[in-house]
Amino acid sequence: VTDPAPLRAHEVATDAAPRADASIAFLGRIRTPWPDRAACPRQGDAAAGPECRIEIDPSWDAALEGIERRDRILVLYWLDQSRRDLLLQNPRHGSGPRGTFDLRSPLRPNPIGVSTVTLLRREGNVLVVRGLDCVDGTPVIDLKPEICARPPESAR
Amino acid sequence: VTDPAPLRAHEVATDAAPRADASIAFLGRIRTPWPDRAACPRQGDAAAGPECRIEIDPSWDAALEGIERRDRILVLYWLDQSRRDLLLQNPRHGSGPRGTFDLRSPLRPNPIGVSTVTLLRREGNVLVVRGLDCVDGTPVIDLKPEICARPPESAR
Repeated sequence: VTDPAPLRAHEVATDAAPRADASIAFLGRIRTPWPDRAACPRQGDAAAGPECRIEIDPSWDAALEGIERRDRILVLYWLDQSRRDLLLQNPRHGSGPRGTFDLRSPLRPNPIGVSTVTLLRREGNVLVVRGLDCVDGTPVIDLKPEICARPPESAR
Repeated sequence: VTDPAPLRAHEVATDAAPRADASIAFLGRIRTPWPDRAACPRQGDAAAGPECRIEIDPSWDAALEGIERRDRILVLYWLDQSRRDLLLQNPRHGSGPRGTFDLRSPLRPNPIGVSTVTLLRREGNVLVVRGLDCVDGTPVIDLKPEICARPPESAR
Protein backbone atom coordinates (compact mmCIF):
# COMPACT_ATOMS: atom_id res chain seq x y z
CA VAL A 1 0.00 0.00 0.00
CA THR A 2 1.93 3.00 -1.23
CA ASP A 3 -0.94 5.30 -2.16
CA PRO A 4 -1.28 7.88 0.61
CA ALA A 5 -4.84 8.87 -0.32
CA PRO A 6 -7.34 8.24 2.45
CA LEU A 7 -10.54 6.32 1.85
CA ARG A 8 -13.37 8.36 0.36
CA ALA A 9 -16.91 8.19 1.66
CA HIS A 10 -18.44 4.69 1.44
CA GLU A 11 -15.17 3.11 0.34
CA VAL A 12 -14.32 -0.23 1.92
CA ALA A 13 -10.91 -1.90 2.22
CA THR A 14 -10.23 -5.51 3.06
CA ASP A 15 -8.46 -6.29 6.29
CA ALA A 16 -7.21 -9.64 4.98
CA ALA A 17 -3.44 -10.01 5.05
CA PRO A 18 -1.79 -9.35 1.68
CA ARG A 19 -0.78 -12.50 -0.21
CA ALA A 20 2.35 -13.06 -2.27
CA ASP A 21 1.62 -16.14 -4.35
CA ALA A 22 3.89 -15.40 -7.31
CA SER A 23 6.46 -12.83 -8.35
CA ILE A 24 6.48 -10.28 -11.14
CA ALA A 25 9.61 -9.22 -13.01
CA PHE A 26 9.80 -5.68 -14.32
CA LEU A 27 10.95 -5.86 -17.96
CA GLY A 28 11.57 -2.18 -18.54
CA ARG A 29 9.96 1.22 -18.07
CA ILE A 30 7.33 3.25 -19.88
CA ARG A 31 8.14 6.86 -20.70
CA THR A 32 5.12 9.17 -20.91
CA PRO A 33 4.53 12.94 -20.67
CA TRP A 34 2.72 12.56 -17.32
CA PRO A 35 4.76 12.97 -14.12
CA ASP A 36 2.04 11.85 -11.69
CA ARG A 37 -1.43 10.34 -11.58
CA ALA A 38 -3.20 13.69 -11.42
CA ALA A 39 -1.68 14.60 -14.79
CA CYS A 40 -2.66 11.39 -16.58
CA PRO A 41 -5.54 11.36 -19.06
CA ARG A 42 -8.57 9.31 -18.08
CA GLN A 43 -7.88 6.94 -20.94
CA GLY A 44 -5.21 6.51 -23.57
CA ASP A 45 -5.95 7.42 -27.18
CA ALA A 46 -4.36 4.98 -29.62
CA ALA A 47 -5.19 7.26 -32.57
CA ALA A 48 -4.38 10.78 -31.38
CA GLY A 49 -2.55 10.43 -28.05
CA PRO A 50 1.04 11.62 -27.64
CA GLU A 51 3.97 9.36 -28.50
CA CYS A 52 5.16 7.30 -25.54
CA ARG A 53 8.18 5.04 -25.30
CA ILE A 54 8.33 1.50 -23.97
CA GLU A 55 11.96 0.86 -23.03
CA ILE A 56 12.67 -2.86 -22.75
CA ASP A 57 15.67 -3.99 -20.71
CA PRO A 58 18.48 -5.28 -22.95
CA SER A 59 18.19 -8.74 -21.41
CA TRP A 60 14.73 -9.10 -23.03
CA ASP A 61 15.58 -7.36 -26.29
CA ALA A 62 15.61 -10.60 -28.30
CA ALA A 63 12.00 -11.30 -27.28
CA LEU A 64 10.90 -8.29 -29.37
CA GLU A 65 11.85 -10.11 -32.58
CA GLY A 66 9.08 -9.66 -35.15
CA ILE A 67 6.93 -7.30 -33.10
CA GLU A 68 7.90 -4.42 -35.41
CA ARG A 69 5.49 -5.85 -38.01
CA ARG A 70 2.51 -5.35 -35.70
CA ASP A 71 0.19 -2.37 -35.91
CA ARG A 72 -1.37 -2.80 -32.50
CA ILE A 73 -0.10 -4.49 -29.38
CA LEU A 74 -1.35 -5.11 -25.89
CA VAL A 75 0.80 -3.60 -23.12
CA LEU A 76 0.63 -4.80 -19.52
CA TYR A 77 2.17 -2.61 -16.83
CA TRP A 78 2.43 -2.46 -13.07
CA LEU A 79 0.66 0.45 -11.40
CA ASP A 80 3.19 0.68 -8.62
CA GLN A 81 1.66 3.67 -6.86
CA SER A 82 -1.63 1.93 -6.12
CA ARG A 83 -3.07 0.77 -2.84
CA ARG A 84 -4.20 -2.83 -3.23
CA ASP A 85 -6.82 -3.37 -0.55
CA LEU A 86 -9.95 -1.63 -1.87
CA LEU A 87 -13.13 -3.67 -2.23
CA LEU A 88 -15.50 -0.77 -2.94
CA GLN A 89 -14.38 2.50 -4.53
CA ASN A 90 -15.90 5.89 -5.26
CA PRO A 91 -14.79 6.86 -8.77
CA ARG A 92 -14.05 10.56 -9.16
CA HIS A 93 -16.69 11.03 -11.82
CA GLY A 94 -19.12 8.40 -10.61
CA SER A 95 -22.28 8.31 -8.61
CA GLY A 96 -21.43 6.14 -5.64
CA PRO A 97 -19.28 3.23 -4.54
CA ARG A 98 -18.67 0.36 -6.93
CA GLY A 99 -16.85 -2.94 -6.73
CA THR A 100 -13.17 -2.82 -7.65
CA PHE A 101 -13.64 -5.51 -10.31
CA ASP A 102 -16.41 -3.42 -11.91
CA LEU A 103 -13.93 -0.56 -12.45
CA ARG A 104 -10.74 -0.01 -14.41
CA SER A 105 -9.30 2.02 -11.53
CA PRO A 106 -5.55 1.54 -10.91
CA LEU A 107 -6.36 0.69 -7.30
CA ARG A 108 -6.82 -3.09 -7.35
CA PRO A 109 -5.45 -6.17 -5.58
CA ASN A 110 -3.02 -6.82 -8.44
CA PRO A 111 -2.44 -3.37 -9.92
CA ILE A 112 -1.98 -4.44 -13.55
CA GLY A 113 -2.88 -1.98 -16.29
CA VAL A 114 -3.81 -3.23 -19.77
CA SER A 115 -3.77 -0.93 -22.80
CA THR A 116 -4.08 -1.54 -26.51
CA VAL A 117 -1.65 0.76 -28.28
CA THR A 118 -0.71 1.66 -31.83
CA LEU A 119 2.89 0.74 -32.59
CA LEU A 120 4.50 3.58 -34.53
CA ARG A 121 8.02 2.18 -34.77
CA ARG A 122 10.70 0.15 -33.07
CA GLU A 123 14.04 1.78 -32.24
CA GLY A 124 16.20 -1.08 -31.03
CA ASN A 125 14.94 -2.01 -27.57
CA VAL A 126 12.41 0.84 -27.56
CA LEU A 127 8.86 0.73 -28.91
CA VAL A 128 7.31 4.09 -29.77
CA VAL A 129 3.53 3.88 -29.34
CA ARG A 130 0.30 5.85 -28.93
CA GLY A 131 -2.50 4.96 -26.54
CA LEU A 132 -1.00 4.87 -23.05
CA ASP A 133 -2.32 6.81 -20.06
CA CYS A 134 0.08 5.86 -17.26
CA VAL A 135 2.58 7.78 -15.15
CA ASP A 136 6.11 8.30 -16.50
CA GLY A 137 8.39 5.54 -15.27
CA THR A 138 5.69 2.87 -14.90
CA PRO A 139 7.21 -0.64 -15.07
CA VAL A 140 6.22 -2.72 -18.11
CA ILE A 141 5.49 -6.39 -17.39
CA ASP A 142 4.31 -7.88 -20.71
CA LEU A 143 3.72 -7.21 -24.40
CA LYS A 144 1.42 -9.33 -26.57
CA PRO A 145 -0.16 -9.17 -30.01
CA GLU A 146 -3.55 -7.48 -29.77
CA ILE A 147 -6.48 -9.69 -28.90
CA CYS A 148 -8.46 -10.46 -32.03
CA ALA A 149 -11.76 -12.24 -32.40
CA ARG A 150 -10.08 -14.61 -34.86
CA PRO A 151 -6.33 -14.24 -34.51
CA PRO A 152 -4.11 -14.94 -37.48
CA GLU A 153 -1.16 -16.17 -35.47
CA SER A 154 -0.51 -19.50 -33.83
CA ALA A 155 -0.71 -20.06 -30.14
CA ARG A 156 2.19 -22.09 -28.90
CA VAL B 1 10.54 -22.69 -14.38
CA THR B 2 8.03 -25.47 -13.84
CA ASP B 3 7.44 -26.49 -17.46
CA PRO B 4 9.35 -29.69 -18.07
CA ALA B 5 9.33 -29.33 -21.85
CA PRO B 6 12.82 -29.03 -23.36
CA LEU B 7 13.69 -26.27 -25.78
CA ARG B 8 12.66 -26.90 -29.36
CA ALA B 9 14.94 -26.25 -32.32
CA HIS B 10 16.10 -22.63 -32.60
CA GLU B 11 14.52 -21.66 -29.28
CA VAL B 12 16.58 -19.37 -27.08
CA ALA B 13 16.27 -18.83 -23.33
CA THR B 14 17.77 -16.01 -21.31
CA ASP B 15 20.43 -16.86 -18.76
CA ALA B 16 19.71 -13.68 -16.78
CA ALA B 17 18.76 -14.35 -13.16
CA PRO B 18 15.00 -14.22 -12.54
CA ARG B 19 13.77 -11.00 -10.94
CA ALA B 20 11.10 -10.60 -8.27
CA ASP B 21 10.18 -6.91 -8.34
CA ALA B 22 6.60 -7.19 -7.10
CA SER B 23 4.23 -9.81 -5.80
CA ILE B 24 1.00 -11.20 -7.20
CA ALA B 25 -1.92 -12.33 -5.05
CA PHE B 26 -4.09 -15.16 -6.32
CA LEU B 27 -7.73 -14.07 -5.94
CA GLY B 28 -9.38 -17.38 -6.72
CA ARG B 29 -9.35 -20.19 -9.24
CA ILE B 30 -10.77 -20.75 -12.70
CA ARG B 31 -12.67 -23.96 -13.34
CA THR B 32 -12.58 -25.20 -16.93
CA PRO B 33 -13.14 -28.55 -18.68
CA TRP B 34 -9.43 -28.87 -19.56
CA PRO B 35 -7.19 -30.83 -17.17
CA ASP B 36 -3.86 -29.93 -18.81
CA ARG B 37 -2.35 -27.71 -21.47
CA ALA B 38 -2.54 -30.32 -24.21
CA ALA B 39 -6.32 -30.45 -23.78
CA CYS B 40 -6.85 -26.67 -23.97
CA PRO B 41 -8.29 -25.08 -27.11
CA ARG B 42 -5.98 -22.77 -29.01
CA GLN B 43 -8.21 -19.83 -28.16
CA GLY B 44 -11.31 -19.26 -26.09
CA ASP B 45 -14.64 -18.69 -27.79
CA ALA B 46 -16.72 -16.06 -26.01
CA ALA B 47 -19.77 -16.94 -28.12
CA ALA B 48 -19.82 -20.72 -28.32
CA GLY B 49 -17.21 -21.99 -25.85
CA PRO B 50 -18.20 -24.13 -22.86
CA GLU B 51 -19.26 -22.55 -19.59
CA CYS B 52 -16.37 -21.97 -17.21
CA ARG B 53 -16.46 -20.79 -13.61
CA ILE B 54 -14.37 -18.06 -12.02
CA GLU B 55 -14.41 -18.73 -8.28
CA ILE B 56 -13.42 -15.62 -6.32
CA ASP B 57 -12.14 -16.06 -2.78
CA PRO B 58 -14.69 -14.87 -0.22
CA SER B 59 -12.30 -12.16 1.00
CA TRP B 60 -12.69 -10.41 -2.40
CA ASP B 61 -16.38 -11.12 -2.85
CA ALA B 62 -17.40 -7.52 -2.14
CA ALA B 63 -15.22 -6.30 -5.03
CA LEU B 64 -17.60 -8.05 -7.46
CA GLU B 65 -20.37 -5.55 -6.63
CA GLY B 66 -22.03 -4.38 -9.84
CA ILE B 67 -20.11 -6.68 -12.20
CA GLU B 68 -23.26 -8.77 -12.74
CA ARG B 69 -24.57 -5.98 -15.00
CA ARG B 70 -21.70 -6.44 -17.46
CA ASP B 71 -21.97 -8.48 -20.63
CA ARG B 72 -18.25 -8.81 -21.24
CA ILE B 73 -15.33 -8.66 -18.86
CA LEU B 74 -11.58 -8.95 -19.10
CA VAL B 75 -10.06 -11.80 -17.08
CA LEU B 76 -6.39 -11.87 -16.11
CA TYR B 77 -4.92 -15.14 -14.87
CA TRP B 78 -1.58 -16.62 -13.93
CA LEU B 79 -0.27 -19.36 -16.20
CA ASP B 80 1.48 -21.14 -13.38
CA GLN B 81 2.79 -24.06 -15.44
CA SER B 82 4.88 -21.88 -17.74
CA ARG B 83 8.62 -21.56 -17.99
CA ARG B 84 9.53 -17.88 -17.91
CA ASP B 85 12.90 -17.62 -19.62
CA LEU B 86 12.15 -17.95 -23.35
CA LEU B 87 13.30 -15.17 -25.68
CA LEU B 88 12.59 -16.96 -28.97
CA GLN B 89 9.96 -19.67 -29.34
CA ASN B 90 8.86 -22.11 -32.02
CA PRO B 91 5.06 -22.13 -32.01
CA ARG B 92 3.54 -25.54 -32.64
CA HIS B 93 1.75 -24.42 -35.78
CA GLY B 94 4.24 -21.82 -36.90
CA SER B 95 7.05 -21.57 -39.38
CA GLY B 96 10.10 -20.81 -37.27
CA PRO B 97 11.21 -19.08 -34.10
CA ARG B 98 9.56 -15.82 -33.05
CA GLY B 99 10.06 -13.36 -30.25
CA THR B 100 8.10 -14.09 -27.08
CA PHE B 101 6.47 -10.64 -27.16
CA ASP B 102 5.28 -11.31 -30.72
CA LEU B 103 3.32 -14.36 -29.51
CA ARG B 104 0.44 -15.02 -27.15
CA SER B 105 2.14 -18.18 -25.92
CA PRO B 106 1.72 -18.92 -22.18
CA LEU B 107 5.50 -19.14 -21.91
CA ARG B 108 6.57 -15.58 -21.07
CA PRO B 109 8.57 -13.72 -18.43
CA ASN B 110 5.40 -12.81 -16.55
CA PRO B 111 2.97 -15.58 -17.47
CA ILE B 112 -0.21 -13.53 -17.43
CA GLY B 113 -3.10 -14.59 -19.64
CA VAL B 114 -5.70 -12.07 -20.77
CA SER B 115 -9.09 -13.15 -22.11
CA THR B 116 -12.27 -11.28 -22.95
CA VAL B 117 -15.21 -13.38 -21.82
CA THR B 118 -18.98 -13.26 -21.98
CA LEU B 119 -20.50 -13.09 -18.52
CA LEU B 120 -23.50 -15.44 -18.38
CA ARG B 121 -24.39 -14.99 -14.71
CA ARG B 122 -23.10 -14.42 -11.23
CA GLU B 123 -23.74 -17.01 -8.54
CA GLY B 124 -22.53 -15.37 -5.33
CA ASN B 125 -18.75 -15.37 -5.49
CA VAL B 126 -18.71 -17.31 -8.77
CA LEU B 127 -18.87 -15.85 -12.28
CA VAL B 128 -20.07 -18.20 -15.01
CA VAL B 129 -18.50 -17.19 -18.32
CA ARG B 130 -17.69 -18.27 -21.87
CA GLY B 131 -14.43 -17.55 -23.68
CA LEU B 132 -11.64 -19.02 -21.56
CA ASP B 133 -9.01 -21.44 -22.82
CA CYS B 134 -6.88 -22.13 -19.72
CA VAL B 135 -6.17 -25.22 -17.65
CA ASP B 136 -8.58 -26.15 -14.84
CA GLY B 137 -7.41 -24.65 -11.56
CA THR B 138 -5.60 -21.66 -13.08
CA PRO B 139 -5.30 -18.81 -10.55
CA VAL B 140 -7.28 -15.65 -11.37
CA ILE B 141 -5.46 -12.38 -10.66
CA ASP B 142 -7.78 -9.63 -11.93
CA LEU B 143 -11.18 -8.85 -13.44
CA LYS B 144 -11.96 -5.62 -15.28
CA PRO B 145 -14.70 -4.20 -17.47
CA GLU B 146 -13.90 -4.94 -21.12
CA ILE B 147 -11.66 -2.49 -22.92
CA CYS B 148 -13.74 -0.29 -25.16
CA ALA B 149 -12.66 2.30 -27.68
CA ARG B 150 -14.85 4.83 -25.88
CA PRO B 151 -15.74 3.42 -22.49
CA PRO B 152 -18.98 4.48 -20.86
CA GLU B 153 -17.73 4.20 -17.29
CA SER B 154 -15.59 6.47 -15.22
CA ALA B 155 -11.99 5.81 -14.44
CA ARG B 156 -11.17 6.50 -10.84
